[in-house]
Amino acid sequence: MRKILAIDAGGTSSRAVLLDESGACSGFGRASGGNPTAVGVAGAVDALALAAERALGGQTPSPTSDSLVVIALAGTATPPFITLLESRLAGLGLAGRTVIEPDLLGTFCSGTPLVEGYAVIAGTGTIAARISDGQIHTVKGGSGWLLGDAGSGFWIGQQVARAVVASLDGLGPATTLTQLLLEATGIERTGARSRGRSEELSRLVHELYALRPVELARFAPLAFQALDVSPADPVAREILEAAAEAIARVLSAAREPEFGDTSVPGVVVLGGSVLAAGLARAPAIFTDALQDALGGAELVPVEDGIVGAAVLAFRHLGLEVDPALHRRLTAEIDGARARAGVA
Amino acid sequence: MRKILAIDAGGTSSRAVLLDESGACSGFGRASGGNPTAVGVAGAVDALALAAERALGGQTPSPTSDSLVVIALAGTATPPFITLLESRLAGLGLAGRTVIEPDLLGTFCSGTPLVEGYAVIAGTGTIAARISDGQIHTVKGGSGWLLGDAGSGFWIGQQVARAVVASLDGLGPATTLTQLLLEATGIERTGARSRGRSEELSRLVHELYALRPVELARFAPLAFQALDVSPADPVAREILEAAAEAIARVLSAAREPEFGDTSVPGVVVLGGSVLAAGLARAPAIFTDALQDALGGAELVPVEDGIVGAAVLAFRHLGLEVDPALHRRLTAEIDGARARAGVA
Repeated sequence: MRKILAIDAGGTSSRAVLLDESGACSGFGRASGGNPTAVGVAGAVDALALAAERALGGQTPSPTSDSLVVIALAGTATPPFITLLESRLAGLGLAGRTVIEPDLLGTFCSGTPLVEGYAVIAGTGTIAARISDGQIHTVKGGSGWLLGDAGSGFWIGQQVARAVVASLDGLGPATTLTQLLLEATGIERTGARSRGRSEELSRLVHELYALRPVELARFAPLAFQALDVSPADPVAREILEAAAEAIARVLSAAREPEFGDTSVPGVVVLGGSVLAAGLARAPAIFTDALQDALGGAELVPVEDGIVGAAVLAFRHLGLEVDPALHRRLTAEIDGARARAGVA
Repeated sequence: MRKILAIDAGGTSSRAVLLDESGACSGFGRASGGNPTAVGVAGAVDALALAAERALGGQTPSPTSDSLVVIALAGTATPPFITLLESRLAGLGLAGRTVIEPDLLGTFCSGTPLVEGYAVIAGTGTIAARISDGQIHTVKGGSGWLLGDAGSGFWIGQQVARAVVASLDGLGPATTLTQLLLEATGIERTGARSRGRSEELSRLVHELYALRPVELARFAPLAFQALDVSPADPVAREILEAAAEAIARVLSAAREPEFGDTSVPGVVVLGGSVLAAGLARAPAIFTDALQDALGGAELVPVEDGIVGAAVLAFRHLGLEVDPALHRRLTAEIDGARARAGVA
């Protein structure tokens, strides 16, 4: 029987599953970030090979060309990346075809067997796509932390940091975020001043510039935490409302009438850490904004793109993925994930 | 007669003047950035020594301890910087005392002989100070490009870039800025699409990420240029209005009542490239916002902090700088600057 390996290569973590043509899943493997743009070609190939090895359960069968590997990946896969990856996979007995698919398509297919609709990811970045006939038709957003990606984890984390700096400097209102960020960075409030400034402000600014800019994403959870502590905190609420609106705007742009898309076909599949947290912890803010953006379309949140990578693999083999097979793949992969002890 | 050398050490350019105790200025020198935080200790010392050498007019007199060098500088001067700088100045015959003063004080004293008031700089960053009894009393803003500095050159340039990226992506309104930024980056509009995106958007994003983030400041002038081309352009107008408001907010924060400052003593001296451009090219936006912030106080724009560095040098010698001497220093330095052929 043909070996099918599906991989979801993320910026900070990657997943792989081993499947047969019936949809049975016999292995789940997890590893660190496998996106070559985020971690470099060598690091990405190492991570993806490790996830694959773990999904294979330690077996290294004799090389066979009767295998298919489908990898859902953001951005561009360069020839050096593909060459190195194929050589490593061949060493694991997967010498057959390797196909790279957009992560947006992996996310979409994780949530639905349909071939029409939208995928929105808000995690490291904010990006949305119109899916038509099972392919990416239009992509919106995804311009990165410096030029776009409003509503992403970086963006929320930066807004949190800027709001606290402004508040400590008397340029912005008081907010629960201040205490949370000072705790997260291990800075005590002393009230002391030097050179005309508060000492905790100077220390906070120093600590935050010691990070790489994108690492500000680690403070995004503080916005949700602030609302748990003080549901009325206007600063945290404004940041999350602006994030939800920005994500909804990217989704709306994917259905601009210029693309002949005045109705709303299919479902809207939602992925990424910000949308997961937003729907679970601030549903009044996030669900409303997204419902407004698509006029009541069905919203389907997904954990990641691994089921979608499996769906795409089946389609590459010419097999139809009907709702029953989609449910089976989802249940099989969830079961393997649970057995692998990986949340 | 005692040699007085005053230096204004900026992030991108530095100025030095040679004075005697009567206020006569016999030399003006200019060099590149002399701020050790911005360009490193060695580069900053090289630039300041070169500016000093040019102000000395090529003379290298025998070392004398009867000299005073006053340097107006943003941020902290570390001991290695001061040691290296003093050794280089001694080599130029300036073996006497070297004093570092805050650039905010240099800016303030460039505009007024008074010892009470405010200084606001909006250039590389956005920062304001309350000056009391001739000293910095309170500093607001200046938290840098990632955490603060709304209204700075970086901030305006980033807003320009983000607005154009959003517009090309269908996430924001059309704006004159698009044509200006595409011209500035040498990108032609083709209307072609690949991978679900417009090609000029992909190329622009690629070009802009090839810069260091802070280099986005070079696009700040496009906001003013857009208003020249299309005075009603709402995107450029909103960016400049938000910049002026942010600068005014930093100024307002410097007079918070918690510092016992409910009235508005003295003048408000304005420095930095954004304020210079704002007052000259969009006065309706900038003057109004700043007047509102200080209830009609007198606004004094200055070109840089070199006159202020000279004023501070005179004060360090125990000499009073009255309005007549302030006018004389300003006129002498302007004359030397013109003779040196440096705008």
